[in-house]
Amino acid sequence: MEKTDILVIGGSAAGIVAATTSKAFHKNKKVILVRKEEKVLVPCGIPYIFGSLDSSDQNVIPDAALSNAGVELKINEAVSLDKDKKICRFADGEEIAFEKAVIATGSVPAVHAWLVGADLGNVFTVAKDKNYLDQFSKKLADFKKIVVLGGGFIGIEVADELNKIGKDVTIVEMLPHVLSLAFDPELACEAQELLKARGICVRSNSKVKELSGAKQVEKVVLSDGETIDADAVILATGYKPCVSLAAEAGLQINKMGFIEVNEYMHTSHKDIFAVGDCAEKHGFITRALKGTMLASAACAEARIAGMNLYKLSTLRSFSGNISIFCTCIGDTAFGAAGVTETLANERGFNICCGTFEGIDKHPGTLPGTHKQVVKLIVDDESGVILGGEVLGGCTTGELINMIGLMIQNRMTVSSLLTFQIGTQPLLTAPPTAYPLIKAAEAVVMQSC
Amino acid sequence: MEKTDILVIGGSAAGIVAATTSKAFHKNKKVILVRKEEKVLVPCGIPYIFGSLDSSDQNVIPDAALSNAGVELKINEAVSLDKDKKICRFADGEEIAFEKAVIATGSVPAVHAWLVGADLGNVFTVAKDKNYLDQFSKKLADFKKIVVLGGGFIGIEVADELNKIGKDVTIVEMLPHVLSLAFDPELACEAQELLKARGICVRSNSKVKELSGAKQVEKVVLSDGETIDADAVILATGYKPCVSLAAEAGLQINKMGFIEVNEYMHTSHKDIFAVGDCAEKHGFITRALKGTMLASAACAEARIAGMNLYKLSTLRSFSGNISIFCTCIGDTAFGAAGVTETLANERGFNICCGTFEGIDKHPGTLPGTHKQVVKLIVDDESGVILGGEVLGGCTTGELINMIGLMIQNRMTVSSLLTFQIGTQPLLTAPPTAYPLIKAAEAVVMQSC
Repeated sequence: MEKTDILVIGGSAAGIVAATTSKAFHKNKKVILVRKEEKVLVPCGIPYIFGSLDSSDQNVIPDAALSNAGVELKINEAVSLDKDKKICRFADGEEIAFEKAVIATGSVPAVHAWLVGADLGNVFTVAKDKNYLDQFSKKLADFKKIVVLGGGFIGIEVADELNKIGKDVTIVEMLPHVLSLAFDPELACEAQELLKARGICVRSNSKVKELSGAKQVEKVVLSDGETIDADAVILATGYKPCVSLAAEAGLQINKMGFIEVNEYMHTSHKDIFAVGDCAEKHGFITRALKGTMLASAACAEARIAGMNLYKLSTLRSFSGNISIFCTCIGDTAFGAAGVTETLANERGFNICCGTFEGIDKHPGTLPGTHKQVVKLIVDDESGVILGGEVLGGCTTGELINMIGLMIQNRMTVSSLLTFQIGTQPLLTAPPTAYPLIKAAEAVVMQSC
Repeated sequence: MEKTDILVIGGSAAGIVAATTSKAFHKNKKVILVRKEEKVLVPCGIPYIFGSLDSSDQNVIPDAALSNAGVELKINEAVSLDKDKKICRFADGEEIAFEKAVIATGSVPAVHAWLVGADLGNVFTVAKDKNYLDQFSKKLADFKKIVVLGGGFIGIEVADELNKIGKDVTIVEMLPHVLSLAFDPELACEAQELLKARGICVRSNSKVKELSGAKQVEKVVLSDGETIDADAVILATGYKPCVSLAAEAGLQINKMGFIEVNEYMHTSHKDIFAVGDCAEKHGFITRALKGTMLASAACAEARIAGMNLYKLSTLRSFSGNISIFCTCIGDTAFGAAGVTETLANERGFNICCGTFEGIDKHPGTLPGTHKQVVKLIVDDESGVILGGEVLGGCTTGELINMIGLMIQNRMTVSSLLTFQIGTQPLLTAPPTAYPLIKAAEAVVMQSC
């Protein structure tokens, strides 16, 4: 039987980072990563294979990252895990004994049982599976009218890409606006209006009753009886964690269906860790269990597992998911981190919010200047920043990361008032109206 | 005699922010801002009036920011300040009595006495003076060969803009590379090569002996005897603080020629504050006196003065200049914050550096993907981040601001290893190779 020091099961973002971090921090240990897929796609790049990229081949994570780091790669499917003997068994009968294991089995599209007609032809999911997506891509030319169920990030990104290549796209969303879980109504509404302005039909506040058709899907039937014609339907209704390997091994699974882990990404067994979409998540601010799946958060968890395999360090623990999102609709970007105003109120926080609207270059007469909006959600008593939302141009991703950093460091709006920044005409807002500082000022002014 | 509660002298970025912050935090006080210029230019936008903008008219700071904030604007030149009677006297004989004053008199180009020929025709400075710059712009059509003395930020930005409109531009720089004070040789060298690739001639390691010509400048004579033909010369050799008003009023001036201030931006008189280019600066890390002038830092100082006018707050004090720079050459941006490796070594810090080179979108096959390099300069014993440098695309300004935030919060590389980020194909590096985290890893790995 083959033996390894460290076995990583799963080869998407979390698995890769768990393996390379494990090797980097434990140079003398042998690290094997086993995954079932021949090729792995950049997960968040998947919506872009339909428009901005030529094909899924341009969206493959190169295996060189593993070999360069000294990680051994095996393509095989893990079918059972004996946690007492510390042996993993694979589909072809092979077995690997390990000292430490990291489970990074990820997630698959959630196809809800109540959705009648989900098994019709031309109903697709956004599975993280290259072969499946390639088959979908091949058929794309046959479809004109495409209905996307779900107005979350994956839904709107896929919709925007399909719109770019000339499809008639409709998004159906149950909630009042797209992106409602990540953004407060102001920004979610702006995202929705932008999608419409780009020619995408958005049906929010709409619940789907069923999909209908003979063999292939033909119509999406809404619960109010209205129907939408569809040559194809894409289910962008979330993902569910892949935990059967862990569950069958007797590891604890939480009530939301994720593998239980602590701050070091330890499962209920001291030599087995879990990271990424399959691992339990808590809100950094709310402390409540949550099910948000993000490649970026998965990588943070994976780094923490990799660093704690043989010796725990309180310095390097995971304090809950800040949930930092960003996306683009056309050339307008949207970012969110921490809690929204809506969620903070629901959970009973005593908060104060401040918003500033400015521009992302200066003077605003420079070509390509984009509107920039920053909203901060702040604990009223302490001034600690609990959340933030950004609308802007190409710098939105790093602006929301800066807010993420503030949340993680429990910074206060008061400290933001003395924040030193760099500004440059082509790269940032003006120094007199830098949006993070002005939004903090807007919060502080309310108690002046 | 007119009376005011708060008098701000000077109307560029620092003056505007001092006045608006004063009013925002002291709603019942009367605030007057007096400046001598009819119109004020966005200071860091000035290089762009030669290329990216049509004229200086597109680079004027709108006065609405003042009137909307409830600040009264007067156009007049302050000629003397009686600090005991707390009266400011103006060029037209008018006097204003004040309770608190903020001096924000800025800086003017430094024309060094040793430069023979600086008084020839067609020798220009980059003065923050709209009329002067408009006259220069009008003559631009007559010039083909333009020599820029000084390869700092203003020098290279003006050079890149003049190159965009088809001029033959040569930069002459004394030091081995352009931008040598802000960047270590690796990135400074890359900036220099990029300028050359864009068709700008760069003469580094070159000292100017004199400018020669009959009435108009005709040649730049280097100290090695070589000459460069010039239809016009632009002196981008730094700025000197305007402190005569403060000095004549008897306020303390430091040995570098700046108005002495403490952490609350107090001058040596308890009711008079100074901010911006005219006010004393200390390095946040080195603690040494320095002369760096930045609109963004000026605004941070101005906010602090405005908040401390009537009641000092240790929460809202200025802890020294982090000196966050960013600029663009073509579509490549460069950012720096804190100390360089070179400066840290010169000052005797025990440091450790880490660099990571990646991409700013993911997968890298996405259109517009730009190389991204992050270097971190770290205190070896504590792991505290002392400085950083970034090369990249349009997100570089906010990335360097994030490093600035880390420096200001005295964050360690260890805390960066657990940093949660958001990533998105079109907006950021991949989650598996986010440059700030990978550069931190590169530092930590050296002691593993």
